[in-house]
Amino acid sequence: MFDPVTLKLNVDPLILSALQEDITNEDVSTNSVMPHPQPGEVDLICKEDGVICGLQIFERVFTLLEENTQVETFVEDGDEVKNGQLLAKVRGDIRVLLCGERTALNYLQRMSGIATYTHSVAVLLEGTGTKLLDTRKTTPNNRIFEKYAVRTGGGNNHRLNLSDGVMLKDNHIGAAGGVKEAVTMAKEYAPFVRKIEVEVENIDMVKEAVEAGADIIMLDNMSHEEMREAMNYIDGRAQVEVSGNVTKENIAKLTDLGVDFISSGALTHSSPILDISLKNLHQI
Amino acid sequence: MFDPVTLKLNVDPLILSALQEDITNEDVSTNSVMPHPQPGEVDLICKEDGVICGLQIFERVFTLLEENTQVETFVEDGDEVKNGQLLAKVRGDIRVLLCGERTALNYLQRMSGIATYTHSVAVLLEGTGTKLLDTRKTTPNNRIFEKYAVRTGGGNNHRLNLSDGVMLKDNHIGAAGGVKEAVTMAKEYAPFVRKIEVEVENIDMVKEAVEAGADIIMLDNMSHEEMREAMNYIDGRAQVEVSGNVTKENIAKLTDLGVDFISSGALTHSSPILDISLKNLHQI
Amino acid sequence: MFDPVTLKLNVDPLILSALQEDITNEDVSTNSVMPHPQPGEVDLICKEDGVICGLQIFERVFTLLEENTQVETFVEDGDEVKNGQLLAKVRGDIRVLLCGERTALNYLQRMSGIATYTHSVAVLLEGTGTKLLDTRKTTPNNRIFEKYAVRTGGGNNHRLNLSDGVMLKDNHIGAAGGVKEAVTMAKEYAPFVRKIEVEVENIDMVKEAVEAGADIIMLDNMSHEEMREAMNYIDGRAQVEVSGNVTKENIAKLTDLGVDFISSGALTHSSPILDISLKNLHQI
Amino acid sequence: MFDPVTLKLNVDPLILSALQEDITNEDVSTNSVMPHPQPGEVDLICKEDGVICGLQIFERVFTLLEENTQVETFVEDGDEVKNGQLLAKVRGDIRVLLCGERTALNYLQRMSGIATYTHSVAVLLEGTGTKLLDTRKTTPNNRIFEKYAVRTGGGNNHRLNLSDGVMLKDNHIGAAGGVKEAVTMAKEYAPFVRKIEVEVENIDMVKEAVEAGADIIMLDNMSHEEMREAMNYIDGRAQVEVSGNVTKENIAKLTDLGVDFISSGALTHSSPILDISLKNLHQI
Amino acid sequence: MFDPVTLKLNVDPLILSALQEDITNEDVSTNSVMPHPQPGEVDLICKEDGVICGLQIFERVFTLLEENTQVETFVEDGDEVKNGQLLAKVRGDIRVLLCGERTALNYLQRMSGIATYTHSVAVLLEGTGTKLLDTRKTTPNNRIFEKYAVRTGGGNNHRLNLSDGVMLKDNHIGAAGGVKEAVTMAKEYAPFVRKIEVEVENIDMVKEAVEAGADIIMLDNMSHEEMREAMNYIDGRAQVEVSGNVTKENIAKLTDLGVDFISSGALTHSSPILDISLKNLHQI
Amino acid sequence: MFDPVTLKLNVDPLILSALQEDITNEDVSTNSVMPHPQPGEVDLICKEDGVICGLQIFERVFTLLEENTQVETFVEDGDEVKNGQLLAKVRGDIRVLLCGERTALNYLQRMSGIATYTHSVAVLLEGTGTKLLDTRKTTPNNRIFEKYAVRTGGGNNHRLNLSDGVMLKDNHIGAAGGVKEAVTMAKEYAPFVRKIEVEVENIDMVKEAVEAGADIIMLDNMSHEEMREAMNYIDGRAQVEVSGNVTKENIAKLTDLGVDFISSGALTHSSPILDISLKNLHQI
Repeated sequence: MFDPVTLKLNVDPLILSALQEDITNEDVSTNSVMPHPQPGEVDLICKEDGVICGLQIFERVFTLLEENTQVETFVEDGDEVKNGQLLAKVRGDIRVLLCGERTALNYLQRMSGIATYTHSVAVLLEGTGTKLLDTRKTTPNNRIFEKYAVRTGGGNNHRLNLSDGVMLKDNHIGAAGGVKEAVTMAKEYAPFVRKIEVEVENIDMVKEAVEAGADIIMLDNMSHEEMREAMNYIDGRAQVEVSGNVTKENIAKLTDLGVDFISSGALTHSSPILDISLKNLHQI
Repeated sequence: MFDPVTLKLNVDPLILSALQEDITNEDVSTNSVMPHPQPGEVDLICKEDGVICGLQIFERVFTLLEENTQVETFVEDGDEVKNGQLLAKVRGDIRVLLCGERTALNYLQRMSGIATYTHSVAVLLEGTGTKLLDTRKTTPNNRIFEKYAVRTGGGNNHRLNLSDGVMLKDNHIGAAGGVKEAVTMAKEYAPFVRKIEVEVENIDMVKEAVEAGADIIMLDNMSHEEMREAMNYIDGRAQVEVSGNVTKENIAKLTDLGVDFISSGALTHSSPILDISLKNLHQI
Repeated sequence: MFDPVTLKLNVDPLILSALQEDITNEDVSTNSVMPHPQPGEVDLICKEDGVICGLQIFERVFTLLEENTQVETFVEDGDEVKNGQLLAKVRGDIRVLLCGERTALNYLQRMSGIATYTHSVAVLLEGTGTKLLDTRKTTPNNRIFEKYAVRTGGGNNHRLNLSDGVMLKDNHIGAAGGVKEAVTMAKEYAPFVRKIEVEVENIDMVKEAVEAGADIIMLDNMSHEEMREAMNYIDGRAQVEVSGNVTKENIAKLTDLGVDFISSGALTHSSPILDISLKNLHQI
Repeated sequence: MFDPVTLKLNVDPLILSALQEDITNEDVSTNSVMPHPQPGEVDLICKEDGVICGLQIFERVFTLLEENTQVETFVEDGDEVKNGQLLAKVRGDIRVLLCGERTALNYLQRMSGIATYTHSVAVLLEGTGTKLLDTRKTTPNNRIFEKYAVRTGGGNNHRLNLSDGVMLKDNHIGAAGGVKEAVTMAKEYAPFVRKIEVEVENIDMVKEAVEAGADIIMLDNMSHEEMREAMNYIDGRAQVEVSGNVTKENIAKLTDLGVDFISSGALTHSSPILDISLKNLHQI
Repeated sequence: MFDPVTLKLNVDPLILSALQEDITNEDVSTNSVMPHPQPGEVDLICKEDGVICGLQIFERVFTLLEENTQVETFVEDGDEVKNGQLLAKVRGDIRVLLCGERTALNYLQRMSGIATYTHSVAVLLEGTGTKLLDTRKTTPNNRIFEKYAVRTGGGNNHRLNLSDGVMLKDNHIGAAGGVKEAVTMAKEYAPFVRKIEVEVENIDMVKEAVEAGADIIMLDNMSHEEMREAMNYIDGRAQVEVSGNVTKENIAKLTDLGVDFISSGALTHSSPILDISLKNLHQI
Repeated sequence: MFDPVTLKLNVDPLILSALQEDITNEDVSTNSVMPHPQPGEVDLICKEDGVICGLQIFERVFTLLEENTQVETFVEDGDEVKNGQLLAKVRGDIRVLLCGERTALNYLQRMSGIATYTHSVAVLLEGTGTKLLDTRKTTPNNRIFEKYAVRTGGGNNHRLNLSDGVMLKDNHIGAAGGVKEAVTMAKEYAPFVRKIEVEVENIDMVKEAVEAGADIIMLDNMSHEEMREAMNYIDGRAQVEVSGNVTKENIAKLTDLGVDFISSGALTHSSPILDISLKNLHQI
């Protein structure tokens, strides 16, 4: 769950903006037929197996619209859920339930989809010393939700944005004049609580990065043989990240190498949603 | 392309918010090594076959950051592109190129993914009188981009939000006291430029909807036999929408019925991205 | 009344902005003499006969400033009220009552003025099949209030804005190459839940519009004779709107023609306010 | 004219908000038929005699939408204009002209309406020592435009809002314990650049106000005889404001008294608009 | 204390912005170790002698984050406090206490620092007829807090901003063509509730200002002899402000002159903070 | 200098807000006497010796108000400047120069004050291996400017906010159950690019922190003897920060210990401003 401060400061403005995207004036269908409040209840039902994520956001959509709306949940974020399972009941003015339904589900389905997919990859790494990381390949204006869903699914978060983590790529290294120069400049410039990560493409760059005192080394596009050599050279003097597609086939090879982290953009940019819907809306 | 007015009023605020999500303070990596402007150029390369969409948004990300950034495009939204194809070149201060890269690609990849998937479904409907529609199952704060991508891929847009289209579902009908009452109330209440759509579940409701003068009738969860009966009854007196999963197997049956529209939430909620990247960044 | 969702998402931001326009720093007069809360009560008194509208907005101004302020109302939006009539009592911290007074009345007086004037026109149409419509000639940043006031006074709403209704005028027709082309292009482009309205100036255009399948035809600047001919030709195949000044003299002629709608910009752009004031503020 | 700083800081945000009210997504009619830019020109024509006001705002609407739009004006704010007169020509992308038309006219018509009505009252005061003032009875979120229009029509501005002027009314006086106490407290509390105005209802209060050193005394609901007595007593020791309906009949009596200011809420809350329209839009 | 309306409209947006500056995503330290709410209490302790100011803002930081947080205060704004004194106790979810601590203290320390320094200057003026004024030399986006702190410390507020007070400086006088012309133009242009202040540099300008009817005359950079001559000439016909550094040495000379106001930018731009901290956080 | 992206995304909104704080409606003094643009020039003069900082922000204030304003600078951020030195010339519409003056100087004076004070402390550390750090004790809504000024003066930045750095204090350690548990939980929870800092109060906690793999250890309130013991124990296995007042007297003792960082809140919360002003405004 998001803590109450993050919810208030960083989440609520995004939810309100999403609601205003869906209701630019009023829900004209509902207002045509329901001029007055009408207490009702609706069931939140899962329609696929998966990992549920975003129940708090689902609830917040409704309580932001009308603070007295009540959401009773029967599962928690991170739980594995089954097709047909009753996840929650929502009670309140039916007009509010109808207005919030689509936005609430859009968040819940996407977050659960990411958690589900992340979980399916994370289990492949269980028992190894390698952790699964996300990337900044998130949907615009949805990063805070998607990074949370990755954690819920068993992954870990890489840097949140360009301001809170240092990642020196080829262009940075070129501008600085070399790996060593780049690392030194970053240590001098960046707030001192930042680790310094360097992206390297060959064994020479690996050596330079280690000598320069990089905290994290990212092996980019290197052969398995090169990666093994790199791991031997690094020998614990820096953490090691490998980026790329993780499949059942290649996963064993990577974890055998003993890399600390595997990062995957697909966790956030290509997970299909988890199908969840509101059913049985009725007056109470 | 978005017209300049929409871009200014409705798109720019979203892009700026997305950029602030990725740069809460500064790009600390770039600023560590590049204290001064440095003119450069980078190639936009497609890494999968698909339909490109969002080039204007891709460009706008960079020009919002620095108005002198130049994006030269070699394709247009809606073009089919190939793995390895050079799509565009971006020229400007390398620091700006690095700052905008991720956000620009996040938009472009998602929009192209939706256009590509929509196109693959739309071709199944070519030559029939049936059109493909999207839904409101879009990513929060991304609807304007995703609905545009659907059009680019050959689909059509259903209502944009709860305020600009009337869709009377079972709960509305229940609250009104019947299909006829609901349609009458909506005609009375809603701005008169709205069409009235009614969701029906059986042939009796179809009849009521037609008598009540519904403009569009949505057949929900009806068997093929019932749908045929419905089509016969409606006989052109209202437009007909069917919602649901379109597959190569069932598509022929639906188009044979002569429905006007098939709507699909998957177009926007579950399209994988199209892989596109910036390569060969170099000083000029 | 506005439903709670519209109030929260679409109305509150406008009211807050209006309050900040009137209180850029503090109410310096009140704070000079009342450093502490002081419970009080004030009467809302009507000073002219008319149709009351906007009581909920009047109340919201006060409750947004201080949620415990209480507004007890003795009439409802749409009621005919008389000079001298007690409409409501407001109770709360006198400082809050003084701070909100002007903004609350500015909304209430304007909305009631529009409702009153609309009502005086709408009664002229009673018993005919013709409805009264507003236009987009509203006060900037007040459309949602003014369109609501029109409905309260017995009118109906035309499209809310440029995005939620299609109205093809001479320039659109010219750009498209003709009435038929314009209608076809709009049916192709616009979300399919939109009706297509065409503004026509002569009988040839009327014919083209009907053939092209326009949903609504607006007769612009046509003589009574031409309008009669148009009505005969259209014969129920499209709805018909006439725009222009409605007076007691010409109203009978228009309703005799059997047009569906008469639209009037004056409803929102030139209604005088209804005089209402707060009186008898006293401590309790 | 507004100076460039006020335009940027205080006017532009309001205009942008008004445009977003009218274009929540896109101008669907225009975009249906004009996918590409199309240079055009349109005439701004006056359709009633009056005083023009708001030409800069009219222009700003278009240049905010597209900075290259050109507005050539043939009159200036404050000029008396005639029915049929060509006021300006607007040139730019026709799509932009169509998108901005309504909002630009809504501002121009309202501001010109207020300037016209204010002017008609102000001429009644010409040659007397009495000035015409507006009030805070303005349309929410339009005060800056309406107060400007009052000045353009020959009136003067009373305080802008509750924060920048002190006006002690009966409730303030009651809370303070008397006129003298209220004035003393305000002088102590309010920023020292504020004048202190006191609203009085009888000759005793007038005397107290003068003794207490009030800068401005507002005579509220006093008979002509009492006002004369008040003027004699005050004898230049404070400025005097009278509020109320100014008519040709009563105006002479008030100016004879030699009051400094007459304030009128009707200037801003009940002026009808001045009819102005865009005509002859054509490609160039 | 700020009244509830000012707090809601003008203070809360600034506090929320400050909190978002400190929490762009979440308090990662706290969330690492405290996934669940944990009721706790902490003491607010003064670590220097001074004048306390800003307790309401201190409290508001916490209640904006979580409305149930309770702040029990043992002193009031304006009280003199001692090193080691317990000022308040804060109770609530420890996570909220940790998230709000820094922002709450940053406000409280700065406001108390200004109140303390202002008080130390204001006591030098006690018993004289001269008042102490602040200036617009405040910290950007903190003026409302700093001007309040000046009042709390015993000072008075000069104009709040460029819009609510008239101060004619040499450039204004030059543009107008002379002191008299400038005053006349300002009286004509500015809302009539504004006093007119003129900045003068020699006795001739003083004379012109008095003749022109300036309400306030600011003596700028004049010798003590010239100021005495100015005071004699003015003789109560306008209020007099002197700007400049007030020291124990020169203060007697200025107050002997009988000037009405001495203004000092240092009150807001160079006061050191008052050291205050939160101690003894513990679970309850 | 701030890079153009940071300026656009993170700085401009703050400057605009500061300008709106100073100009809620218009600069009434200037507009009274200058209805038309008037090209002019003014000198930026230093009135004290110090380190200049914020010239870009000073310029941005003017160019945000009117993009054609030109600022010619003769020094750069970080330069030592002298009393009486000409720092820059500003050219543009005099009305814009007058409107922006106060806000531009408020930023420049505060930033230069911080840079000047920071520089005076940083020189005490020159030649040692110890670096000077700032804290989060910054002025609300000014952190980005103040942290930049610290760097300009020769200091380094600690974490920017609660989201981008981990600092485990006594309450975090208590909640976790011990230093080791807290470090472990933070490594698990926080984005992996974060270093983990732990605040310790005695030698036992130092040992625990080292064993747990803390990246940075902050020695809080420890005697010189304890700090020496801590340094011996840590022996390069973690970076060491000491917080507290740095004076000429104690500085040698701290640097002798070989700590990596000394942090000081006074850099940002209590630096007096550097006196700088605009002089000789004249028409050109």
